[in-house]
Amino acid sequence: MSNLNHTYKSWRLNKRPVGEIKNSDLSLVEENIPEINDNEVLARTIYFSLDPTNRIWMSDVDQYMEPVEIGDIMRAGGSIAVVEESKVNDVSVGDIIQGGMHGGWQDYFTVPGNDIIKLPKETGLPLTAFISVLGFTGPTAYFGLLDIGKPKKGETVVVSAAAGAVGSIVCQIAKIKECNVVAIAGSDEKCNWLKNELGVDTAINYKKQNILEALRLACPNGIDVYFDNVGGDTLDAALTLMNKFGRIPVCGLISMYNDWSSTGPKMYRNILMKTLTVTGFLVSDFTDQFEECLQTLGQWVAEEKIKYKVDVVEGIENAPTAVNKLFTGENQGKLVIQTSREP
Amino acid sequence: MSNLNHTYKSWRLNKRPVGEIKNSDLSLVEENIPEINDNEVLARTIYFSLDPTNRIWMSDVDQYMEPVEIGDIMRAGGSIAVVEESKVNDVSVGDIIQGGMHGGWQDYFTVPGNDIIKLPKETGLPLTAFISVLGFTGPTAYFGLLDIGKPKKGETVVVSAAAGAVGSIVCQIAKIKECNVVAIAGSDEKCNWLKNELGVDTAINYKKQNILEALRLACPNGIDVYFDNVGGDTLDAALTLMNKFGRIPVCGLISMYNDWSSTGPKMYRNILMKTLTVTGFLVSDFTDQFEECLQTLGQWVAEEKIKYKVDVVEGIENAPTAVNKLFTGENQGKLVIQTSREP
Repeated sequence: MSNLNHTYKSWRLNKRPVGEIKNSDLSLVEENIPEINDNEVLARTIYFSLDPTNRIWMSDVDQYMEPVEIGDIMRAGGSIAVVEESKVNDVSVGDIIQGGMHGGWQDYFTVPGNDIIKLPKETGLPLTAFISVLGFTGPTAYFGLLDIGKPKKGETVVVSAAAGAVGSIVCQIAKIKECNVVAIAGSDEKCNWLKNELGVDTAINYKKQNILEALRLACPNGIDVYFDNVGGDTLDAALTLMNKFGRIPVCGLISMYNDWSSTGPKMYRNILMKTLTVTGFLVSDFTDQFEECLQTLGQWVAEEKIKYKVDVVEGIENAPTAVNKLFTGENQGKLVIQTSREP
Repeated sequence: MSNLNHTYKSWRLNKRPVGEIKNSDLSLVEENIPEINDNEVLARTIYFSLDPTNRIWMSDVDQYMEPVEIGDIMRAGGSIAVVEESKVNDVSVGDIIQGGMHGGWQDYFTVPGNDIIKLPKETGLPLTAFISVLGFTGPTAYFGLLDIGKPKKGETVVVSAAAGAVGSIVCQIAKIKECNVVAIAGSDEKCNWLKNELGVDTAINYKKQNILEALRLACPNGIDVYFDNVGGDTLDAALTLMNKFGRIPVCGLISMYNDWSSTGPKMYRNILMKTLTVTGFLVSDFTDQFEECLQTLGQWVAEEKIKYKVDVVEGIENAPTAVNKLFTGENQGKLVIQTSREP
């Protein structure tokens, strides 16, 4: 092995959280790194992704994939790693790869040769671009807004959790499509960033403003697309103001993840009254179109039509604390844990 | 004028109902029939339609068209009438016409020449076919199931209010499309009709059975299309069992119409978890495809692939009492008021 570390650390699920995630719901376990087999690599994690959906996977609610089992390593929605040992043809020590479904909340992992996806080299972009705008969150924004939301020039697009990893990209794609973009976020700092840096037309601080009244002012022609990351009261306010034939891509319902007993939207009836289309989606359902999507996003990033922010928290030991920032609204942009240095 | 009647009767909205519709919420008013103008006809109503949406129009909740104003004649979702006096070229006394937006809860009305739609002659079908399966309710079933629900052969289609005017047609179209059809209704008599006459695979009496458990048994492969007429607990049960990429055409939410304060579905989260598409629709949004739809439905009726039932209540004075049958589940098939004899 190419380094002196013979152990690796991982966060394993101890018990299913009740309410917000507590450190005691997970255990940081240290174990020996296994010998790799033929056609496998050993990879050292550099970054792994923290996402609201971690909270779904920790629960045993009926969900879009299997929950993480008690005792298993916590699943990550993407990671970036460097190959430290390789028994795979064409993969060399030092190659940078995507962790895919193999790189969870852990600082080392093995990957079979067939599952290896190398990052492109010499792109001029920082590595963190490939765990944010060019990882999963950019494509989530892209497919959710364009394929499900189908915004037309001049329409009004409202985005909740707009300063988040997905929301901030949605806002900018909607501006590229020449829409009236209304961003909802939870602090003045986020609102200023959305307005001054990302160019949204209106930013609403939902912690300070009455969301329904603020949306009514920002959307004099009603709402055509509501890109939902949160559910709850914000969803109800948006439903109230939707135009006939409006579209609601459902990307997330973060306000519900800590307590599934909350009810559905009071204004559900407007799906009928305004003949809306509400569609849940997962980025993993669009793999056929991924390459085209990444090319377009990459070009927009290169042209500075899309900016992105990555909130890096150092140290694997901080993962359970850091993931709660997604629920309190403390983070801005894509939240990741850095577990080792970039090569 | 061609008859001795110089007055007509109409039900006018007195006040907005609280809970179920009471006779005192409307007034039966007798007034003089106005003289018709050039390019107008005077029509005598034979049948007018009673529909769950009457209850929406009586309320002032934000809705898909303007509510009926206090003092105005109650709007009907279709009527059939005979021309008694005509100042329109090509329209003769004795012609049978659709009331369109002109024939409300009233026994006479006038129609401008441009709005006249004559019924086809010598079809061999009873007149009531044209206020049910070949009126609005058949096309509602047709477009909602085929354009929104998009059922594929072998898929499971669940239909609520399945013995109703729309639901009963949905069930039969779904059988024509070779689906596993599960019908939900509120009496054993209705369930027997659905199973023995209309050929559904399973009929569930929701007043006797636990709806979630009964659906689970009837849908061993999950639900692909849930055609919703009711909302409420039935919607929650269906959401619980929906398959990935399931479709929910929202045709009605009758369980909510008497009390808008009820909350949305507790299982709303499954729109995300199962990547569902939930779409509200109105038959009036499909006028471009009406002719094709009526041809197909007409052929299915002629071939006896589609049967339909019309529940005729005689006497305009009974309209407010009769409309409540839609909410208590007393009626079966299309509910209409007959105000005068067929010619």
